[in-house]
Amino acid sequence: MTRPLPRTEGTFFPPVMEARRWLDGVEFPADRPLINVSQAAPVDPPPEPLRQVIADAALNRPEAHLYGPVLGLPELREEVAKQWSDAYSGTIVAGNVGITSGCNQAFCATLSTLCGEGDEIILPTPWYFNHKMWLDMVGVTAVPLATGDDLLPDPEAARALITPRTRAIVLVSPNNPGGVEYPPELLRAMYTLAQSHGIALIVDETYRDFDARSGAPHDLFGDENWGDTLIQLYSFSKAYRLTGHRVGAMVCAPQRLAQAEKFLDTVTICPNQLGQIAALWGMQNLGQWVAGERAEILDRRAAISEHFPKVEAKGWRLLGCGAYFAYVEHPFALPSNELAPALVREAGVLVLPGTMFMPEEDSAGQRQLRIAFANVDRAGIAELFDRLSQVSLPLAPASGKA
Amino acid sequence: MTRPLPRTEGTFFPPVMEARRWLDGVEFPADRPLINVSQAAPVDPPPEPLRQVIADAALNRPEAHLYGPVLGLPELREEVAKQWSDAYSGTIVAGNVGITSGCNQAFCATLSTLCGEGDEIILPTPWYFNHKMWLDMVGVTAVPLATGDDLLPDPEAARALITPRTRAIVLVSPNNPGGVEYPPELLRAMYTLAQSHGIALIVDETYRDFDARSGAPHDLFGDENWGDTLIQLYSFSKAYRLTGHRVGAMVCAPQRLAQAEKFLDTVTICPNQLGQIAALWGMQNLGQWVAGERAEILDRRAAISEHFPKVEAKGWRLLGCGAYFAYVEHPFALPSNELAPALVREAGVLVLPGTMFMPEEDSAGQRQLRIAFANVDRAGIAELFDRLSQVSLPLAPASGKA
Repeated sequence: MTRPLPRTEGTFFPPVMEARRWLDGVEFPADRPLINVSQAAPVDPPPEPLRQVIADAALNRPEAHLYGPVLGLPELREEVAKQWSDAYSGTIVAGNVGITSGCNQAFCATLSTLCGEGDEIILPTPWYFNHKMWLDMVGVTAVPLATGDDLLPDPEAARALITPRTRAIVLVSPNNPGGVEYPPELLRAMYTLAQSHGIALIVDETYRDFDARSGAPHDLFGDENWGDTLIQLYSFSKAYRLTGHRVGAMVCAPQRLAQAEKFLDTVTICPNQLGQIAALWGMQNLGQWVAGERAEILDRRAAISEHFPKVEAKGWRLLGCGAYFAYVEHPFALPSNELAPALVREAGVLVLPGTMFMPEEDSAGQRQLRIAFANVDRAGIAELFDRLSQVSLPLAPASGKA
Repeated sequence: MTRPLPRTEGTFFPPVMEARRWLDGVEFPADRPLINVSQAAPVDPPPEPLRQVIADAALNRPEAHLYGPVLGLPELREEVAKQWSDAYSGTIVAGNVGITSGCNQAFCATLSTLCGEGDEIILPTPWYFNHKMWLDMVGVTAVPLATGDDLLPDPEAARALITPRTRAIVLVSPNNPGGVEYPPELLRAMYTLAQSHGIALIVDETYRDFDARSGAPHDLFGDENWGDTLIQLYSFSKAYRLTGHRVGAMVCAPQRLAQAEKFLDTVTICPNQLGQIAALWGMQNLGQWVAGERAEILDRRAAISEHFPKVEAKGWRLLGCGAYFAYVEHPFALPSNELAPALVREAGVLVLPGTMFMPEEDSAGQRQLRIAFANVDRAGIAELFDRLSQVSLPLAPASGKA
């Protein structure tokens, strides 16, 4: 009898923590500070009125310190249902909404309602590494669905990967790490594909508030039986700058939520209350403020496009740009997992290598980097590409995919 | 090929949520309100100075709203290490301490570093139901270790259950649901047993702050190589009334913590910051206040002993009493899972049935109930036993175990 590996030994170490260690011992001169474009997170706190709401609740609302329902505050579930029904022209009720301790946890809970040991999940590559880590740790096989230069997954290619063990297709739109916004027709095609095979379509919309397009990003909630197929994941962290509070959501059929409740109860008992109070107040009062945040992110995205030619001339390619991310191909001989630590020293820039978003057997990641630009203003973005354009390292023998 | 069950379908629904549903549609007259002794949680908020600390941090500390390290605030890890080293006369450093989103999550993370599919964990019965639920959901077999009327597990009986698939023995002391405080010699014997078999000893000390004994509850941290065997779990929820903030801890070898970090990163990214700030301030400033809380809980425990004779005369037996819990045997013919809902209507009392803490095949749970008395004052405890002593339901044919 072979002893099975403990679950954690079947996966890799957290990439963001690993990248932080590349900074150890490196000095950054005062006139050339580190440009950290490694993590997709706001670095400023929420606006003052929202901080005041949290402080008031801490002082004056006893229930803010006590256990709440496993699936979250009823008022917050109701508010998500109401705003989503409007935004997506669909029918979403509070009983479809579960609040979780962040969007990662929504993914974990969702998976626990879908899969057992040895099941399969289709993940387009480059993928979000925490998705891959969770699948590794619960005995589920991540089946990579390679995308082309446009970073969009092809439904026909997905169809070819479906086996009797497949339980879901997971999409992230706007995409992390790729930055691309999936067209509604693509989401519809994936939904129809999932539906026809009796599997789930999980759509992680963590970055929905920063989508450049107007209107609903898809029309799937308009289907009468959307709950049979669709599971949507969301995060309150980005829109309201609440990353340190851990509040996310899953939107799905009530029967699935009843199953997810077992997982959420066991793993955290309930989402923390102050974060939920903040998220609710934000949804009800910060619509205009979030619109301003979105405009700022879209302006930074425009700055990426404006300044990218500086490195394009040196053989770089911009594969995707949107939400918080630019996903790029670099021209150097070093694989990205060696290039990224070298860029800390050579350019004072911290990015994540494409290898962190790819299965080991797919060498494309070695040519790719993720730039999480949301925290860098226009001047910083100009400086970022100035620095990258000056990097002097041996080039790869030929451009295009390695 | 048989399709494996989704993980959540392999376990039961959250007992506390199920028990809450027994209240649906039941009216409680104003002069005879519900006595809710179902959940082990404070119902009052933290003391005002601690609420003020949280409010101040929300207003004035930007980092309180941002992602923090996966394993928690360095200052909190340091403080736990310092206070634990003193309390247990052992060597515990910050690198041994990981902060988690509640103690349930500490258990889940620990298990993920120990077990793979089909492994086994030894759990004394009655067990803590969330432990059992997690094992069910990660494909690990919970091997029940029956205890006698003293609710203490026998190391020799544990030894007989160890197989090549056993990865740990899990103890909860002071015990939930049993209320008993395990003698240091018992913990030492279990530690030696685990050590000699190369397996882990997990000790959940969620209720350590309410232990009636003075001094350290065990001397295991005094061993030079404790980290090879011992994993301790802790919760900040009870001592500082922070249940709604979700802050717990695991104390173990640094190499295990590095593995647990993968799980914690993926499932929640980091513990929420305000809760950690509160826990740290509580540890540094509320020692006297917690001592007062402990004295109050111990007085309520004494009240249980004083009033229990009212029902003892009717055939009830007190099996364990301590921490937040009295664990009792009832004299009625109804199994506890039917008795507990009946007691809502008959006595206006909500307790959890022993069946929620036992494997189905062990009928002992049918005669048992857990009374979580921490939220009920002396007058309420007197009233509780008055009401229970008046319950008129058919008795079981014989006393003793069914």
